[in-house]
Amino acid sequence: MADAVIDLNADLGEGFGRWSLTDDEALLSVVTSANVACGFHAGDPSTMRRVCALAAERGVRIGAQVSYQDLVGFGRRAMDVPPEELADEIAYQIGALQVFARAAGSRVSYVKPHGALYNKVVGDSEQAEAVVAGVLRAGAVCDGPLPVLGLPGSRLLAVAEGVGLPVVTEAFADRAYTWAGTLVPRRDPEAVVHDPEAVIARAVGIARDGLVTAIGGEPVPVEARSLCVHGDTPGAAQLAWRVRGALASAGVRVEAFV
Amino acid sequence: MADAVIDLNADLGEGFGRWSLTDDEALLSVVTSANVACGFHAGDPSTMRRVCALAAERGVRIGAQVSYQDLVGFGRRAMDVPPEELADEIAYQIGALQVFARAAGSRVSYVKPHGALYNKVVGDSEQAEAVVAGVLRAGAVCDGPLPVLGLPGSRLLAVAEGVGLPVVTEAFADRAYTWAGTLVPRRDPEAVVHDPEAVIARAVGIARDGLVTAIGGEPVPVEARSLCVHGDTPGAAQLAWRVRGALASAGVRVEAFV
Amino acid sequence: MADAVIDLNADLGEGFGRWSLTDDEALLSVVTSANVACGFHAGDPSTMRRVCALAAERGVRIGAQVSYQDLVGFGRRAMDVPPEELADEIAYQIGALQVFARAAGSRVSYVKPHGALYNKVVGDSEQAEAVVAGVLRAGAVCDGPLPVLGLPGSRLLAVAEGVGLPVVTEAFADRAYTWAGTLVPRRDPEAVVHDPEAVIARAVGIARDGLVTAIGGEPVPVEARSLCVHGDTPGAAQLAWRVRGALASAGVRVEAFV
Amino acid sequence: MADAVIDLNADLGEGFGRWSLTDDEALLSVVTSANVACGFHAGDPSTMRRVCALAAERGVRIGAQVSYQDLVGFGRRAMDVPPEELADEIAYQIGALQVFARAAGSRVSYVKPHGALYNKVVGDSEQAEAVVAGVLRAGAVCDGPLPVLGLPGSRLLAVAEGVGLPVVTEAFADRAYTWAGTLVPRRDPEAVVHDPEAVIARAVGIARDGLVTAIGGEPVPVEARSLCVHGDTPGAAQLAWRVRGALASAGVRVEAFV
Repeated sequence: MADAVIDLNADLGEGFGRWSLTDDEALLSVVTSANVACGFHAGDPSTMRRVCALAAERGVRIGAQVSYQDLVGFGRRAMDVPPEELADEIAYQIGALQVFARAAGSRVSYVKPHGALYNKVVGDSEQAEAVVAGVLRAGAVCDGPLPVLGLPGSRLLAVAEGVGLPVVTEAFADRAYTWAGTLVPRRDPEAVVHDPEAVIARAVGIARDGLVTAIGGEPVPVEARSLCVHGDTPGAAQLAWRVRGALASAGVRVEAFV
Repeated sequence: MADAVIDLNADLGEGFGRWSLTDDEALLSVVTSANVACGFHAGDPSTMRRVCALAAERGVRIGAQVSYQDLVGFGRRAMDVPPEELADEIAYQIGALQVFARAAGSRVSYVKPHGALYNKVVGDSEQAEAVVAGVLRAGAVCDGPLPVLGLPGSRLLAVAEGVGLPVVTEAFADRAYTWAGTLVPRRDPEAVVHDPEAVIARAVGIARDGLVTAIGGEPVPVEARSLCVHGDTPGAAQLAWRVRGALASAGVRVEAFV
Repeated sequence: MADAVIDLNADLGEGFGRWSLTDDEALLSVVTSANVACGFHAGDPSTMRRVCALAAERGVRIGAQVSYQDLVGFGRRAMDVPPEELADEIAYQIGALQVFARAAGSRVSYVKPHGALYNKVVGDSEQAEAVVAGVLRAGAVCDGPLPVLGLPGSRLLAVAEGVGLPVVTEAFADRAYTWAGTLVPRRDPEAVVHDPEAVIARAVGIARDGLVTAIGGEPVPVEARSLCVHGDTPGAAQLAWRVRGALASAGVRVEAFV
Repeated sequence: MADAVIDLNADLGEGFGRWSLTDDEALLSVVTSANVACGFHAGDPSTMRRVCALAAERGVRIGAQVSYQDLVGFGRRAMDVPPEELADEIAYQIGALQVFARAAGSRVSYVKPHGALYNKVVGDSEQAEAVVAGVLRAGAVCDGPLPVLGLPGSRLLAVAEGVGLPVVTEAFADRAYTWAGTLVPRRDPEAVVHDPEAVIARAVGIARDGLVTAIGGEPVPVEARSLCVHGDTPGAAQLAWRVRGALASAGVRVEAFV
């Protein structure tokens, strides 16, 4: 497919004050979409400003990486937040990020839930609806309906689509998939693909052919307009570059979805 | 002066989660400008949404009551925040509030620093400049330059004026003034006027005549386009109503400044 | 039963900085055990010190009211905290409270989980084990094994008993019970008993006879060495006083369990 | 001086949840005293437990590194905390750390203020008194009066000494000193000594001879029972090892002060 196209997204700005985690500069030179932490699991105002400025400068899209409010748990501990509160927390985070995106001459272009919230809205309709309600609420400071980035088949994308929000599917080149096309849970020892060559091959397979090799060895179809590149591991930016190079060689255009 | 005009502002939404402080509903029926807490000294996302919705419904202007980040100290403990960080913290708060103001069909119409920050920017140029830088940065999510509300003669208003932001002066009917027209510091036992009748008379004097009786007994000129009404004392809303009635009787129009 | 004996416990110190919630002074003159918030859902250091000083002065036992770390949600939002982290969070809270209890000449005498954590450990063995592990860990700053206060039949009490910790059962005079002797869930409109006379009668029934009237009208046995008195409603202290008076009249000794 | 003796202290456990900063394991194999963050500027409960366990295992003394409550500012932003509140905040932190120190079979052996608080109590008597009041308050969970570690000549040490607390002086081998024996302020470009050889030579000079070369080139006397080794720079542990080796070669015993 000469006209295959894929977006590369990464979690960025996941430091907090004195602490940093992701090599924001290096990653911003390779990805096309930056999921910027908004202060609830990571990300202080100055980090948000700096990442937005860099992203804008390099033409990388800015997304709001929204989370449960849990700094010490890095947003990885699921929380039973009442839907109305959750919607407001989502809207708050988008609004705060928008100020830095706009100040940099860009804007918040999409929303992606983080960590435990990301996992929760795969199957939990109530929480998915709350996230979508928050996105709609924040629409008032945006130019139009914000796209939602998530797993194909998730409740989040279904709910978002139901209210008319654009949805964007994503896949992970370094995660194992079941024969059903779902992610192997992280607690499984085979959940993560560590071999860089395999990651690169899988990235090309997903982007060009819409196929990934499941743990059983068979190819399964996987839908993805965006590939998530992990940014918090050593050598992350370098691997991302190699993935990007391999995509180009395979004739896949790397391009933001908005 | 038949054409005297004054705004009434109050601090609102100063609860946090389970805790509440101000009788937001009652005060929103009497003031013309609501200084809404933005989460740094008080104010969680759901409280912000509710206060913005009520304010919009009643035609009350929404202002961002920005603060140092200090929940346990309620923003009353001065902090040496580096200017660039402070500017970003101010912008973050305004952006977060804007989402709820817009969602309610209104918008953030002005900015007023809270507590220790309010006091700091009276005389500290560097911090005043940081606040103004934050307001300018947040301009990107606003329709135009945001007015700044503060003490006449403060560095904050001088700096804001210097960069072309509209400035709004305010006075306090329940605070004692020196012969020089400055506030008697809070640590002074005579700093606060407790007698409701005196408060009402002083409100009229300030709004209609631009004069307040100093602690020595002499009248001193005081400039104010807005009167601050305290909302966190018992009977606050009722006293505010009486002030508003007395202003009307004295021929003073009560009207927002924007 | 002339020798019936009951403890009265209440949640205290549940303010935070500028905010207060419970009438700590009034309640400390009526209860025998004070569940003191330790900073994770409420309770700042100065409030903790004041409540401990008052409790010590009046001979009221001090308990650590431990919670998930969630100020804005007041500890009422369940969180999937990994067991080892939860144990450490529990130990941290007990240690912090112990410093104020000791400084007041008293000590932390028991532990009671708060809010969502209280509900979680009724049925969740893993979280119950984590709480107990935290209590054991904190034993190093205590004189001996700390009693755990909770619902009869809960996993918490079973696990605590299993490792040799003293356990204390509690009941609620203002909560409805099912025929099986369990609490009617809060989402049920009949969950809370509002009539003060009924609350008083139920308190006596529980303490003297070990019986409470279930929603169906039949008496069911309920085991309780302690009665929980709510402190965050208007008139709470006064109702507590009336309960205490009625218990005395019914020949029930009101006495701490440690 | 064959009988010269010095302690080596370092700031440890300065991560928070997902974030880490200091190479705690490596540093705990070289220092004799560990200043453990207590949750106010860094340090979550699980990190505190792990660092205490490692320190106890290796016979390293555990100190409470107490701070203003400011995670995002890493305790580096001075705060005007009212003295009584500050004393309570100090006591709270010591109590929380004590639980992990005791659980590891050790105990909190001293207190050292962090960051902005460290600088504040050099010259500010009121804040120094508040810190000392907090240390005394926490004495109730300690075996006896806790030593206070700080700059020679500081108000902190003077106040601590005045109430009978043991005091321990410290010096910095990688900081420049004035001819008066005080630290060159950090804003000065020459404030920090970067050359490892120079740092090592200065460490020996301070520990063996009580002398350090001032920026003018002349030797000035400096009093120090402890040397602070920085842990948050690359190669920190290795440099610390070289310092320790050089001290041994120079006949200086490296030994904790308690």
